[in-house]
Amino acid sequence: MSAGQIDLNCDMGESFGAWRMGEDAAVMPHITSANIACGFHAGDPDTMRRTVALAIQHGVAIGAHPSLPDLAGFGRREMKVSANEAYALIAYQVGALDAFARAAGRRVTHVKPHGALYNMAAKDVALSDAIAVAVHDVDATLILVGLAGSELPRAGERAGLRVAHETFCDRRYEADGSLSPRGVEGAVIDDIDSAVAQGLALAAHGEITARGGSLLKLKVDTLCIHGDKPNAAAFAARLRAALDAAGVRIAALAN
Amino acid sequence: MSAGQIDLNCDMGESFGAWRMGEDAAVMPHITSANIACGFHAGDPDTMRRTVALAIQHGVAIGAHPSLPDLAGFGRREMKVSANEAYALIAYQVGALDAFARAAGRRVTHVKPHGALYNMAAKDVALSDAIAVAVHDVDATLILVGLAGSELPRAGERAGLRVAHETFCDRRYEADGSLSPRGVEGAVIDDIDSAVAQGLALAAHGEITARGGSLLKLKVDTLCIHGDKPNAAAFAARLRAALDAAGVRIAALAN
Amino acid sequence: MSAGQIDLNCDMGESFGAWRMGEDAAVMPHITSANIACGFHAGDPDTMRRTVALAIQHGVAIGAHPSLPDLAGFGRREMKVSANEAYALIAYQVGALDAFARAAGRRVTHVKPHGALYNMAAKDVALSDAIAVAVHDVDATLILVGLAGSELPRAGERAGLRVAHETFCDRRYEADGSLSPRGVEGAVIDDIDSAVAQGLALAAHGEITARGGSLLKLKVDTLCIHGDKPNAAAFAARLRAALDAAGVRIAALAN
Amino acid sequence: MSAGQIDLNCDMGESFGAWRMGEDAAVMPHITSANIACGFHAGDPDTMRRTVALAIQHGVAIGAHPSLPDLAGFGRREMKVSANEAYALIAYQVGALDAFARAAGRRVTHVKPHGALYNMAAKDVALSDAIAVAVHDVDATLILVGLAGSELPRAGERAGLRVAHETFCDRRYEADGSLSPRGVEGAVIDDIDSAVAQGLALAAHGEITARGGSLLKLKVDTLCIHGDKPNAAAFAARLRAALDAAGVRIAALAN
Repeated sequence: MSAGQIDLNCDMGESFGAWRMGEDAAVMPHITSANIACGFHAGDPDTMRRTVALAIQHGVAIGAHPSLPDLAGFGRREMKVSANEAYALIAYQVGALDAFARAAGRRVTHVKPHGALYNMAAKDVALSDAIAVAVHDVDATLILVGLAGSELPRAGERAGLRVAHETFCDRRYEADGSLSPRGVEGAVIDDIDSAVAQGLALAAHGEITARGGSLLKLKVDTLCIHGDKPNAAAFAARLRAALDAAGVRIAALAN
Repeated sequence: MSAGQIDLNCDMGESFGAWRMGEDAAVMPHITSANIACGFHAGDPDTMRRTVALAIQHGVAIGAHPSLPDLAGFGRREMKVSANEAYALIAYQVGALDAFARAAGRRVTHVKPHGALYNMAAKDVALSDAIAVAVHDVDATLILVGLAGSELPRAGERAGLRVAHETFCDRRYEADGSLSPRGVEGAVIDDIDSAVAQGLALAAHGEITARGGSLLKLKVDTLCIHGDKPNAAAFAARLRAALDAAGVRIAALAN
Repeated sequence: MSAGQIDLNCDMGESFGAWRMGEDAAVMPHITSANIACGFHAGDPDTMRRTVALAIQHGVAIGAHPSLPDLAGFGRREMKVSANEAYALIAYQVGALDAFARAAGRRVTHVKPHGALYNMAAKDVALSDAIAVAVHDVDATLILVGLAGSELPRAGERAGLRVAHETFCDRRYEADGSLSPRGVEGAVIDDIDSAVAQGLALAAHGEITARGGSLLKLKVDTLCIHGDKPNAAAFAARLRAALDAAGVRIAALAN
Repeated sequence: MSAGQIDLNCDMGESFGAWRMGEDAAVMPHITSANIACGFHAGDPDTMRRTVALAIQHGVAIGAHPSLPDLAGFGRREMKVSANEAYALIAYQVGALDAFARAAGRRVTHVKPHGALYNMAAKDVALSDAIAVAVHDVDATLILVGLAGSELPRAGERAGLRVAHETFCDRRYEADGSLSPRGVEGAVIDDIDSAVAQGLALAAHGEITARGGSLLKLKVDTLCIHGDKPNAAAFAARLRAALDAAGVRIAALAN
């Protein structure tokens, strides 16, 4: 097996006020990049501060996880925003998180849009461009993370940013590289062995079997760990062991 | 008359979405420091972006105007927040605004809390310390603006920040240097000539007559222009002319 | 000219906290139905209370004007909400407004969705059904107001509600009865004489000339007055005079 | 032991969007009155709908649990609101919840303010009066629930409402009938046996031992079950068994 390098990212800091979500403390030791909620879908300011501290404690790269403004919908509801609005909400949230990183002597290193914004940006050129230009304007050294092969990484490259192609261990892909819609049977890979195997295939070879059986090649810079799954930490540990055994180096995107 | 130096500041960017407030375009040419709302009492992200651009166009220093989280109350309602909460909401808002400044090639230079937070911080040591430490942690070169002679500038100095003492042209003072409560007759100086005269006395001599008739000495680094008054731009122009005639240099705090 | 009956409605109570919008006091005397914002796009609770009082003072019917949850976007941004979510946000807002009506000895008489929700409901059967069933469940005597000839009134009838078809004096129509998109030249009728003429034609005959020249028949129960236009009160007065002269009775929907 | 009657109430519906709080389904079978969050500190509209349905399923009285507008602080942070603002936010939230009750063929029967609003109202006459008048104006048959012996029940009586005095099984009381502040040692009664014993003493005799050892008489109409405690359902079951054994009838306030 050839040795590559892979980043393991997870959405973090998605509690809000008195409400808890995710097992951040359990998962953080196993990942290399944390995408931290910035207050629009989750993550009040004090939660952001504590999540940044947790990431630093474990040597994990601090990333912004900006969203559409939708607390009640957890940022999962599509919303028509103009390019100006998208630009401004990205800059706002990245800056807000960066304040906590700077206060702790660090900086935000990457940006991964959340939920509906992520999915819309994968297909919408104008939205992707607005996001990418905002990220670039705030800090041209930031890495923009998006769905592998989708519009968002393309927009990032047009804007002059480093980009990272994200893939999923526990989601089935269509032959064209898009994710199988959740309604489709088998769209979510619940079996841990299968998810680890797909993660390993993605990280080591960038090649998996799509739904329907065809071979699919994907650019793969980072694997997403779903932190809201009950066994997220255990899954992450198993995945790391498999990657280690295969000689794949696990490191944050900037390294 | 001795020549001193004075900053003229005004709260800006207090529109929100479809709602307009203030005559920012008319007032901006007359001031040296803009305190820009950061989304918690006013100022959606796109309004923040446009207000930063307007400040830059007129060579006005960009300041953050963070608030308690209270859109419906415009940040004017006192709210008991813990030191941790205060720290986090200050860092969050300063960072959010700074993203728009950085995107335009500038930086935030000062921070002035808004409304109830400003008034509470003038008297509350623990709250003032939380605010000052947050500002210092985010960027130790920021200038912290607070009510002249109050707890907030003291906390700023303890935290190692440059501070600015703010005074008001159109508010009466008590003998102890506090503002006369709004309920008191004559607490607000509506006559423009009187307000200009008080502004000049503050800027040139740091000395005015308090309610009751005693002489009051105040530290004076910046004068507040109330941008929500109907004649804010005309008042600012008159004040500048009076300051010019008296040989008082008008310049932003950092200059 | 044959004499019919027409309702004149206007969106009201769209201020929020310290921000003002619309000339409610000037327009209220000229209309028969007020659609009052319910807090999701505009209208904090105290504004709702005062707007209900103003409507009662002028004998105007009290209607709910529920919206998608989007203060920063004034409810004008489309948002994908599920049928359950739509049902719940309609019930919530109608109930909230009804509390102020009941506190003043009245009841809400009609419901007209706002902005993006109104436009989406005109075309989306599932969304319209969710809205209509919610209105019916809360109070089966409520009148549901929607774009003339669109899905929303149809859904209202399926739910067993009285419905009202709404038309616009100052918007051009396509041959199929839809509103000409705002991008199209002439989509908005800015000339007051032309708008009054179209309003009269709609109220008296239910017949106007569509863009392109064809004759368009529309069901017309109520005409919308745009209260955010600078001359809304003057326009409403002119329209009333024209309707009076033509023998069209002006009365609220329930009368 | 003399037989009295007692209501068992619990705060319910305090989830929000994707975030869960409380074990509503486990606790609901054991109580007689549900105080349902109304969107200002918790409880999005769809959660309100589902919580009303759950209460009906278990024959539990539907009550409104209105709060200061503070999602990030879960309504636990004191906030200075005017009497007008308090009136309006109470009416708004009671009406919103009542819509879901009416949609299910029921009505809201009681109102218990939440968190900081509850605590402030216990001591603040003007605030209590605003709350009580709002409740009365919306529906004069509603029962107002407040801290036993505090200003809120007094204000309710002045407004002409039925009131209910609430006491706590798991909180220590001072000799004057106020709750021992949480900072004080022993302020929270964690031992289940002791909490059951205090609940029984309150319900059967209206008499407990205050901190310091003196006997304290309290008016007791309803006991609060803290639903956010890990063993809330088990505690409620134990308390019911003790009340049954002592011949105390358990019934909703209106019964």
